[in-house]
Amino acid sequence: MFKSVTLKEVAAKAGVSYQTVSKVINNKAKVSPETEKRIWDAIAELNYTPNYSGRSLRQQRSKTIGYTWEPSPPDQANPILDAFLQNMFRAAEEKGYYLLCFPFHADDARMLKVYAQLYDTGRVDGFVISRMNYGEPTVPYLLGRRIPFVGFGRLQDDDTSFPYVDVDGGAGIAQAMEHLVALGHRKIAALAWPSDSRVGNNRLEGYYRGLSKAGILHRPSLVVRGEGTSDVGFEATNYLLGLPEEIRPTAIVCMNDMMAIGAMQAIRQAGLQVGRDIGVTGFDDTPTARYLTPPLTSISQPISEIGENLTKRLIEFLETGIFPEPRCELVAPRLEVRESTSSYLPAGK
Amino acid sequence: MFKSVTLKEVAAKAGVSYQTVSKVINNKAKVSPETEKRIWDAIAELNYTPNYSGRSLRQQRSKTIGYTWEPSPPDQANPILDAFLQNMFRAAEEKGYYLLCFPFHADDARMLKVYAQLYDTGRVDGFVISRMNYGEPTVPYLLGRRIPFVGFGRLQDDDTSFPYVDVDGGAGIAQAMEHLVALGHRKIAALAWPSDSRVGNNRLEGYYRGLSKAGILHRPSLVVRGEGTSDVGFEATNYLLGLPEEIRPTAIVCMNDMMAIGAMQAIRQAGLQVGRDIGVTGFDDTPTARYLTPPLTSISQPISEIGENLTKRLIEFLETGIFPEPRCELVAPRLEVRESTSSYLPAGK
Repeated sequence: MFKSVTLKEVAAKAGVSYQTVSKVINNKAKVSPETEKRIWDAIAELNYTPNYSGRSLRQQRSKTIGYTWEPSPPDQANPILDAFLQNMFRAAEEKGYYLLCFPFHADDARMLKVYAQLYDTGRVDGFVISRMNYGEPTVPYLLGRRIPFVGFGRLQDDDTSFPYVDVDGGAGIAQAMEHLVALGHRKIAALAWPSDSRVGNNRLEGYYRGLSKAGILHRPSLVVRGEGTSDVGFEATNYLLGLPEEIRPTAIVCMNDMMAIGAMQAIRQAGLQVGRDIGVTGFDDTPTARYLTPPLTSISQPISEIGENLTKRLIEFLETGIFPEPRCELVAPRLEVRESTSSYLPAGK
Repeated sequence: MFKSVTLKEVAAKAGVSYQTVSKVINNKAKVSPETEKRIWDAIAELNYTPNYSGRSLRQQRSKTIGYTWEPSPPDQANPILDAFLQNMFRAAEEKGYYLLCFPFHADDARMLKVYAQLYDTGRVDGFVISRMNYGEPTVPYLLGRRIPFVGFGRLQDDDTSFPYVDVDGGAGIAQAMEHLVALGHRKIAALAWPSDSRVGNNRLEGYYRGLSKAGILHRPSLVVRGEGTSDVGFEATNYLLGLPEEIRPTAIVCMNDMMAIGAMQAIRQAGLQVGRDIGVTGFDDTPTARYLTPPLTSISQPISEIGENLTKRLIEFLETGIFPEPRCELVAPRLEVRESTSSYLPAGK
């Protein structure tokens, strides 16, 4: 699944000897910060996987698990962070482990270096990784170095290259589609994320599945892509409301609650009533969802169970060297039906 | 400020010898879990402050800071957690430090024991403490053992017994009061927290200050206390709306956004319009606030700055032994005016 890149290719790209690359990876050489950055950049860019044989030289256990995550935008609270963290470190404490949190860096090279340092200096025994996008270099790097980790999420649908628990986002959106079809909707639009978002594509796949199951033809003009913000939801919905009557959607499925909030604002401004005239669904079941007017139908993830599950399994691996089955696990999210869809009155009735 | 309790009193309460208490505190004795729990319970209950002389025996630095926090209720996201954590561990990383997170325990004895173990085993060099309620035993315990920590919050208004940064909640509510008085309100109610909440009382004090500044007489029936949930906000507002016309409030100041959300629902159900007929303010400026109908006037805390500030100052103390001035710092929150107050039309105009 991952390209096989040699140490020499990394060395060539970074313009240094392969001995230097090897020493930097193993935390055994002091080189200038510029050189080090060039090397980590090359590793990240080439998705280099060091070919380690045997276990790391580290012997002492820190009984600590490392975790970092991407911060939410300033105008959004991360709706699942508290429950996820609390359940992770409660499960860890039961086994005498703790969670070490460290900052996220958008720069891949810097991020890989932090992972390497935390592990090589014995601060942590393994990691939980929740950033899973196409080309994410952390996963192949940790795999190659045989550094223990579990993923919250996966890199592709049929991924089995590392242990993870993931929410089946597609199954969630498919539930929303079934619900909308049962209410009588046939013209259903999707507010989707940019096509380089793995999570976004996983969710959107449930939209296509739902259309196909209901025998509805897919109309490309009903899928609008953009960042998962309320502004994008607002603009995209204005565009959808301006479509000719015969294809104008009567329901909009959004890949997160923020887009749904924007969609609801656009519908209201157009003089229509959310729920009764146009159904709207979100994803995440943020605490905001139930307090919107009308309350938003959304899809909730069993985040507490996932945090606990991931931590227990990683610790079992750290203690026994054997990863408990199943190595890869998909959990289904749950549709929470509220008035933003349930009050639908099909035109003419 | 703290009662002076002796080791013997702890021993008597726990029904053990004072040598046993001393050994348990110093992590030097193995006793039965029941005995240990009795001892930590007695320490927590009596607010016992060990009388250590000199520094701890620990020499090695872990360059790690410990932090735990109370989880939010399942239907609420902690609106400030992500920004607070991210800024803490970003500031820590700059100095080569990391954050160790550990679970919150409602049981005081268990919580104190976790603090002691984390410090005594050398896992952390110090703590950030954000749980600050009356009688909180962590603060006197850490003070007594000379374990380094900084508080996000304080135990009483004029507290100077330990270093902290706190948001002046009263100043925030006072800003809301000034804003409402300027709009013409004279009958202003407060949805307050139970009187055993330190943070709640700090905020409510701003309400009294606002009344007094505007020369408005305080009416006890206009202050309703309860947990900071939307249900309590809803019930309390129904009660306020049922008051005789001459004292029925035209504005409601809430100690958090959740209560304000409940208040808005009650006002709507009574056939009145939030903002135009009755002004409502919240506190916390949760991400939900701006997406409510109408958007909610609220009070926002400079949480990122506080996280960074606390961490930097604790690390400076850990590195130099001197706590940077000012030891105790109050920061002002900011009023965010939105339609839930700004669209007010005084009756008869």
